Amino acid sequence: MATSSRFERYLERARPKIEAALERLLPSASREPKTLHRAMRYSVFAGGKRLRPALCLLACESISGRSAPALPAAAALEMIHTFSLIHDDLPGMDDDDLRRGRPTNHKVFGEGMAILAGDGLLSLAFETLSRSRNLRRGSNPCALLETVCMATGPEGMIGGQAMDLLFEGRKVPLRSVYAMHRRKTGALLHGSLRLGAQIGGASAAELRAFQAFGERIGLAFQIGDDLLNVRSTRKELGKATGSDRARGKATVPGRVGPERAEREAARILHEAAAIAPRLGHRSEEFVSMTEFLLHRTH
Amino acid sequence: MATSSRFERYLERARPKIEAALERLLPSASREPKTLHRAMRYSVFAGGKRLRPALCLLACESISGRSAPALPAAAALEMIHTFSLIHDDLPGMDDDDLRRGRPTNHKVFGEGMAILAGDGLLSLAFETLSRSRNLRRGSNPCALLETVCMATGPEGMIGGQAMDLLFEGRKVPLRSVYAMHRRKTGALLHGSLRLGAQIGGASAAELRAFQAFGERIGLAFQIGDDLLNVRSTRKELGKATGSDRARGKATVPGRVGPERAEREAARILHEAAAIAPRLGHRSEEFVSMTEFLLHRTH
Repeated sequence: MATSSRFERYLERARPKIEAALERLLPSASREPKTLHRAMRYSVFAGGKRLRPALCLLACESISGRSAPALPAAAALEMIHTFSLIHDDLPGMDDDDLRRGRPTNHKVFGEGMAILAGDGLLSLAFETLSRSRNLRRGSNPCALLETVCMATGPEGMIGGQAMDLLFEGRKVPLRSVYAMHRRKTGALLHGSLRLGAQIGGASAAELRAFQAFGERIGLAFQIGDDLLNVRSTRKELGKATGSDRARGKATVPGRVGPERAEREAARILHEAAAIAPRLGHRSEEFVSMTEFLLHRTH
Repeated sequence: MATSSRFERYLERARPKIEAALERLLPSASREPKTLHRAMRYSVFAGGKRLRPALCLLACESISGRSAPALPAAAALEMIHTFSLIHDDLPGMDDDDLRRGRPTNHKVFGEGMAILAGDGLLSLAFETLSRSRNLRRGSNPCALLETVCMATGPEGMIGGQAMDLLFEGRKVPLRSVYAMHRRKTGALLHGSLRLGAQIGGASAAELRAFQAFGERIGLAFQIGDDLLNVRSTRKELGKATGSDRARGKATVPGRVGPERAEREAARILHEAAAIAPRLGHRSEEFVSMTEFLLHRTH
């Protein structure tokens, strides 16, 4: 994988800003209940790529020339992403012991505290969004909150996780696998772009372009993730591999084989790259992002 | 227990409006993912008293003469309350099999789906608040959302649940038990009153009175709940009894004995009744509420 693409350089530049915002917004581990705050921080500061917040900042910057107004919203998106990982790893869900090379939240803090750490992060994300002065100044702060809620809730990520659970061990049609991915991974990735663009003041036409682009990169991202699960070693991935197949998870590679899944991702990313020029001043980063995701599927 | 107090008559009148709003706002069980929506509806329509939404409506009506503008917010509060019950009953938390005389959510739908049903209700609550036209028209919709987030998050209910879990089996000082109750039960009850009052357009002085009243009824309510857990039979309560003691839960009756706990609740409710006249035009319902909670502790 190329280590110096435009998109990766953007990720590198955005990361310290996102880390600082998260550090500022998360409750201190020295305040009560300390264990809850420690559990929340453990998973938030576990070395994530910060992809969703970076996409939010990039979309805002691409439209308005500035990323700073989107920073609290970006941090809120990472809290929501982390909440979903903590709950996804629970014994009642995917039952994973390892995430990013470290024991999962419930392995360290126990199941009850992991459930509450996830709940706490989801609630704190909405609190952060309600408190952000930049959202308050905007003409319609509720529209921004609605974007995040729809990306997160039963019509978005949480609905997708339920489908994922319900599809386990069943041979569902390929279009259902796509419908599940669109919600489970696509909704929050696409919501991150949309939220940033909205904060930047994007036009309706620009928001439609972000939607079309976001839906495609969401799908390609998930296919890439599933290919990594098939192909990588545990050490490379920092978590269990081959687990999707063992659990009878519905995935595109599982349904059509890795080669066709790879071609499918390439086709989708080609479409996304064609949309990128309509995404404002930083369209080159978005083109570079499609290349980054393409490399990821090889 | 008297069945015809002013407050109980208000609860009776409010209930059908709240049920109708919840019916309208929850995703239909005929839409995908059906099992998630069925799980969410199972616990929302399990015969709850609708105390929190009724308090929200009553506070709004007491200030403004109308309860209708607070109806979506009231429904959102019940979603948040139900989310907390579903997660609280999980094997990793209190591990309860029975709630309101019926099997708990995870007993019917499995642990994974119960976690997601709770997550979905919390997210849908915030979506409902962001979408409410009455909030959008208000001068500061974000302040209302912030009220709900603070009542729910690590500084409110979720923080209180974490303390409850951390205190299990430990002999914590009485003031820590009170601090836990203030968050675990008090924050959302108090937040419900505050939210309704805010939507009704309460003054800063009125909001302070609602805060002082809400904090007291929250504490008295939790002491009443813990006394019921000690004294009732399983059949009366519709869930396991004596379980707090078996689990080494930190409760006021457990720390000072049921008699002193009852006197303590009476003292707190006496203070609350003295504040009630400052709560707008429907103060008689609020006085009646303190009497209702007093009966509950006998």
